[in-house]
Amino acid sequence: MEYPKAIVDLIDSFKKLPSIGAKSAERLAMYVYSNLDMTDIEEFSTALINVKKNLHKCKVCGNLCEDEECEICSSKKRDHNTIMVVENIKDLYVIEKLNVFNGVYHVLDGAINFQKGIGVEDLTINELIVRAKNPNVKEVIIATNATLEGETTARYVKTLLEGCDCKVTRIAHGLPVGGDINYADEVTVLKALEGRRDY
Amino acid sequence: MEYPKAIVDLIDSFKKLPSIGAKSAERLAMYVYSNLDMTDIEEFSTALINVKKNLHKCKVCGNLCEDEECEICSSKKRDHNTIMVVENIKDLYVIEKLNVFNGVYHVLDGAINFQKGIGVEDLTINELIVRAKNPNVKEVIIATNATLEGETTARYVKTLLEGCDCKVTRIAHGLPVGGDINYADEVTVLKALEGRRDY
Repeated sequence: MEYPKAIVDLIDSFKKLPSIGAKSAERLAMYVYSNLDMTDIEEFSTALINVKKNLHKCKVCGNLCEDEECEICSSKKRDHNTIMVVENIKDLYVIEKLNVFNGVYHVLDGAINFQKGIGVEDLTINELIVRAKNPNVKEVIIATNATLEGETTARYVKTLLEGCDCKVTRIAHGLPVGGDINYADEVTVLKALEGRRDY
Repeated sequence: MEYPKAIVDLIDSFKKLPSIGAKSAERLAMYVYSNLDMTDIEEFSTALINVKKNLHKCKVCGNLCEDEECEICSSKKRDHNTIMVVENIKDLYVIEKLNVFNGVYHVLDGAINFQKGIGVEDLTINELIVRAKNPNVKEVIIATNATLEGETTARYVKTLLEGCDCKVTRIAHGLPVGGDINYADEVTVLKALEGRRDY
């Protein structure tokens, strides 16, 4: 006999998530059945739907939002002339949590990776160049990861921005080389921000 | 700025699951947004609700089912006079997957654990005794884990079954001592089943 269909369906759904294999999926599904009450489950179920239904990318910077523009891009308190370039949305929130940056962002949606076939056309680099050409923009801070892919992307962006009037900076190698912004401790990310240099 | 509400809600739901911390929950929520399509998400969302709505415990053995009695208890092909006693539903399916046991089960819903305050009254031991007193029952196989709690429970069940006519057996210590049925390899579980002895 197999598990009843209801539990098999839930196991199959959990298995679609990253780093959750058959055993973990079984354990999670059984946990949902045994330990969560109907309110928790309904919230979970609704949250799944809403994350797809209510969220989309900010038309300016690529951050997640529930309106046309994200809270950061539509805020009058932010400095719209300093643009921080990040690989992905998670990195954006790592920097936001530090509460030291008052500019706006540009999410590249990844980094150039020849092995995985991720090229310039897969990223939002062209949109960034258009934004940076606005004469009001004072500084573009390139905060891609300190990995091979992040550095390649940074250099490429820097090259394309050479015609612009704005200053182009790169966050310092306070990050351990080869490291990922998302897993660095806050002090390291802070040092990297402070030590940014002309690029 | 925080993540938009939709993503925060999903992160909070993932955090309620075992061994999923803040970082993992964030990663899973972002994965759901970026990598799953609406069909996958709707299936996931429905599966969560159904697991609570459609499933309940078999009134005979405690297995999960969508009807009053589970598929095993209501099957005419199974030997209803051999009862395998397991700690939980996951262990039941570990044994089912071996395809060597044609009897029925009794799920205890845990094991006696004095430290955690799990006593006899929290388990379905009384229901087991009632079933075992049926004169047709030939054998009760105690397949609790080879842990302290599993052994304590096995001994307790054995004592209570002493008045019954049926044979009482215990699966052999083919399981590594201290081990958990759910994580044993199939051959080990098979050996343990074959080597069961009078108890």
